[in-house]
Amino acid sequence: MITTIGVDYGTNSVRALVVDCANGRELGACVVDYPSGHQGVLLDRHNHHLARQRPGDYVFGLEHAVRGALQQAAECDPEFSPLTVAGLGVDATGSTPIPVNADNVPLGCLPEWRDHLDAQAWLWKDHTAHEEAARITQTAARLRPQFIAKCGNTYSSEWFWSKIWHCQRVAPEVFAAAYSWVEFADWVPSLLAGVSDPKKITRGVCAAGHKGLYCDEWGGLPDREFLAALDPQLAALRDRLYEQAHDATVSAGKLCPAWAAKLGLPAGIPIAIGELDVHYGAIGSGITDGVLVKAIGTSTCDCAVIKADQKLADIPGICGVVKGAILPGYYGLEAGQSAVGDIFKWFVEVVCQGDADTHRTLTVAAAALRPGQSGLLALDWNNGNRTVLVDQLLTGLLVGQTLYTAPAEIYRALIEATAFGSRAIIERFAEYGVPIERVVCCGGIMEKNPLLAQIYADVLGCDIYLAGSSQACALGAAVGAAVVAGQGTFAEMQRRMTSLKETVYHPVAADRAVYDRLYHLYKQLHDAFGGVNKAADLSRLMKELIKIKEQQTRR
Amino acid sequence: MITTIGVDYGTNSVRALVVDCANGRELGACVVDYPSGHQGVLLDRHNHHLARQRPGDYVFGLEHAVRGALQQAAECDPEFSPLTVAGLGVDATGSTPIPVNADNVPLGCLPEWRDHLDAQAWLWKDHTAHEEAARITQTAARLRPQFIAKCGNTYSSEWFWSKIWHCQRVAPEVFAAAYSWVEFADWVPSLLAGVSDPKKITRGVCAAGHKGLYCDEWGGLPDREFLAALDPQLAALRDRLYEQAHDATVSAGKLCPAWAAKLGLPAGIPIAIGELDVHYGAIGSGITDGVLVKAIGTSTCDCAVIKADQKLADIPGICGVVKGAILPGYYGLEAGQSAVGDIFKWFVEVVCQGDADTHRTLTVAAAALRPGQSGLLALDWNNGNRTVLVDQLLTGLLVGQTLYTAPAEIYRALIEATAFGSRAIIERFAEYGVPIERVVCCGGIMEKNPLLAQIYADVLGCDIYLAGSSQACALGAAVGAAVVAGQGTFAEMQRRMTSLKETVYHPVAADRAVYDRLYHLYKQLHDAFGGVNKAADLSRLMKELIKIKEQQTRR
Repeated sequence: MITTIGVDYGTNSVRALVVDCANGRELGACVVDYPSGHQGVLLDRHNHHLARQRPGDYVFGLEHAVRGALQQAAECDPEFSPLTVAGLGVDATGSTPIPVNADNVPLGCLPEWRDHLDAQAWLWKDHTAHEEAARITQTAARLRPQFIAKCGNTYSSEWFWSKIWHCQRVAPEVFAAAYSWVEFADWVPSLLAGVSDPKKITRGVCAAGHKGLYCDEWGGLPDREFLAALDPQLAALRDRLYEQAHDATVSAGKLCPAWAAKLGLPAGIPIAIGELDVHYGAIGSGITDGVLVKAIGTSTCDCAVIKADQKLADIPGICGVVKGAILPGYYGLEAGQSAVGDIFKWFVEVVCQGDADTHRTLTVAAAALRPGQSGLLALDWNNGNRTVLVDQLLTGLLVGQTLYTAPAEIYRALIEATAFGSRAIIERFAEYGVPIERVVCCGGIMEKNPLLAQIYADVLGCDIYLAGSSQACALGAAVGAAVVAGQGTFAEMQRRMTSLKETVYHPVAADRAVYDRLYHLYKQLHDAFGGVNKAADLSRLMKELIKIKEQQTRR
Repeated sequence: MITTIGVDYGTNSVRALVVDCANGRELGACVVDYPSGHQGVLLDRHNHHLARQRPGDYVFGLEHAVRGALQQAAECDPEFSPLTVAGLGVDATGSTPIPVNADNVPLGCLPEWRDHLDAQAWLWKDHTAHEEAARITQTAARLRPQFIAKCGNTYSSEWFWSKIWHCQRVAPEVFAAAYSWVEFADWVPSLLAGVSDPKKITRGVCAAGHKGLYCDEWGGLPDREFLAALDPQLAALRDRLYEQAHDATVSAGKLCPAWAAKLGLPAGIPIAIGELDVHYGAIGSGITDGVLVKAIGTSTCDCAVIKADQKLADIPGICGVVKGAILPGYYGLEAGQSAVGDIFKWFVEVVCQGDADTHRTLTVAAAALRPGQSGLLALDWNNGNRTVLVDQLLTGLLVGQTLYTAPAEIYRALIEATAFGSRAIIERFAEYGVPIERVVCCGGIMEKNPLLAQIYADVLGCDIYLAGSSQACALGAAVGAAVVAGQGTFAEMQRRMTSLKETVYHPVAADRAVYDRLYHLYKQLHDAFGGVNKAADLSRLMKELIKIKEQQTRR
């Protein structure tokens, strides 16, 4: 038996998974919640944009999750022993940059910085740096348009340079104390590998990609001149970062004796390069050409790949196009919707003041409706639009209400809206030469809600598959570990270790036809309010919805 | 002491009010619910458009309500006696046509027709005749455009000819049995006056006006040729209707001995001409030049008057412009919103699944918000748009939702939407030479909800007064009775008998400025979805809402 371990760092907890490389069997798993803050996140009640994490929580969670998973594996299968573990892989949220000292110790782990929020890990969803993001976008548009062409022409406040620059402006003492900054997804592998010099960390191109503005085309990180145009101190920092970032064919190092002892694993086993959680999640869900992997949770991350030897234009509105970001030898494409599960949660819990029971009741009632029968149409922009409009200053919209519109009808309209948003992404991919033939979903929402899956099949007009593992990200990291452990190529290891659930949702022709009409109306709203069409004719929209409603009620 | 009695027939009940002509003091009142159907309305569970009433309920309610009010008056003031009653006035819902036999007996009161729904009174909100309404509109547009120019170029399914024609098509046996058809508001006075020949009924121009397509300009009712183009049987019916309709200077007759005995009143006292409920309500609320009276309930009816010697163009989108419909010597103008209270009720009771407590809680929370602070904007079209778009195929819309949007924010946005809808009506009046200087509201909603009144003041930019009487319709009918009883002119009797509440809602300058900005955005949505602007630029709308929200949150 040969096994590998995938370690998946989410927003609130870390999960370790022990997987059999021969067949993907999950022998042991263990989840550890981060002990600090509110569900692992340090908040500032004076600034709701702020979201930080204690790097010490990552270290604590690593040891306990891996040991827990190993123990469970031993209990599950007597043949298992830690000696069968051939490698480790790590994924993490991102962009989550961590300031470290010259010894690669996070400032937040040092007593003198322990209580300084700006010295901690800057969690992906921290939005304190929105001003810096806007200035980076403007400066790039002026000096280096190519830098942002790959991320929809908008640099985000969630990303590496925005956050570091914001730190430099609001907490210069932290910026000065930081010898370097390391992405969360790179730092954990470097810890396991015992790397004590930030310049020697093997950095992954996945997090470096569009989030760090790293690209081979312009020789890696942004040039000093550009950074100096932002701030000379950022230009100076460039020398203390890295020259080269790597795809997953490269190992992040070998397990150092100290961590081997802590985890009870053989020293010297290879560590896969760190990737962002959803990217390893895409691998764990079986991503390849023609497949869109959707990680659906509070928001959605959509991943696709296309062979790196193909010519690929910049795709407007797509968050990131990075060579090697997901699979080696492929461009990795990332898109997403700013809110999906969060919209349903908002409607049920905030508007209807309901709970999990309400979710169930509404789902049952919504499932009894035919497409279009409610006469409603919604935009899924309650948290802005990440793809394809790349505009956070957009909001939700609901149209078609009468005096009889029931909560379940609104609930279904919101589900449909997220499916329409997903279709807009897929159509944008197809338009730029990245055809999608099937969709694989990971994340718990689809598993729990067959209605959602069927609506997506009908709206997208393609089969919806569910990832075989409920822990696709950790599984993908374990696949990465198996590859660096020499067990096979990614294609081979995906074939052996990943799977799809048996249940497949096929489009129903009649419903698909109705959704085609509704999507056409959705696009009218989308283009009118999203600024694509500044001379919109919406005069027939309400009447079309009524017509569809009447037809579907009579059907 | 001289008194008169106003009798107000609403949708679910009838109310009688005994009023002192010297000062408007309300000596006695009594409400009687109609005993039949669901809250007085006969429904058909196979056809939700249908709404009928038993004419017998009107007779039953008349006797009990008037006697009850007289008894209360006697208990209230020892000086009162039925001998002080100098006249009676009646208002009723409409258009509510009643088929009668040659003796002026409603078919629904005859044993052979008692159980036939089509032989009853066709309640104002009956929409079974939508096909006939559309055909009348088309035929008028082709042959007699002037007929519908006075009612926004659309003849309604709620009105006289649509209903009668529908009866002729679906229940020819009822149509054949009906010697004539009488408006509810005319029939009750004719009953009190003992009129036993339908051709001798004194009909009011108020109900005849745009609802019956009656106008002096074309010699009264629609000509036979036009009616024959609809159906020859309608043309034949014309001869059994009436030649002349009258304003409120004319009496509907004198109280006949039989009804005098039933009610315990002096025989021979004059009966005011019947008017529609909101029109007498406008009189009871003190309507005159420059005043808009809003009767706000489930929906809203807006009344204004302008002197009949002024030149008045047809006003597009206004429901009706009829000389003498409200006050003699004035054009009566009627506009309205298809849903107001019904929208709040829908949101609270259907969407939030709440009750009266929820209304209160949401009102308190909504009152704590500043204008624009929610970032939301709604269209008040959940039941279509009566004025100024005259389009029932329009629906509600809400825009600006985030993941934090609270129910109270939506509740306030819906209130604001109805105020914006009201502003659109007032602006249309002003545009066509009917300036509005103050608004007087009657109906319980405003009395119960100061938040609503303040929002209307801020949105409309004018003072909002409340009618002094909670029973403005019955009071207006009592004013009409006082006029025909020779107590004085309408202006004199309004001055003596009607009043305003002391509380006045003045616009707050800062809030008014914010609402001016929001109304501008409302108009963008209104024109785009209402078909006024077929090349709408809505690309900035969400961003403007966010900007206002941020400014109002910081304020």
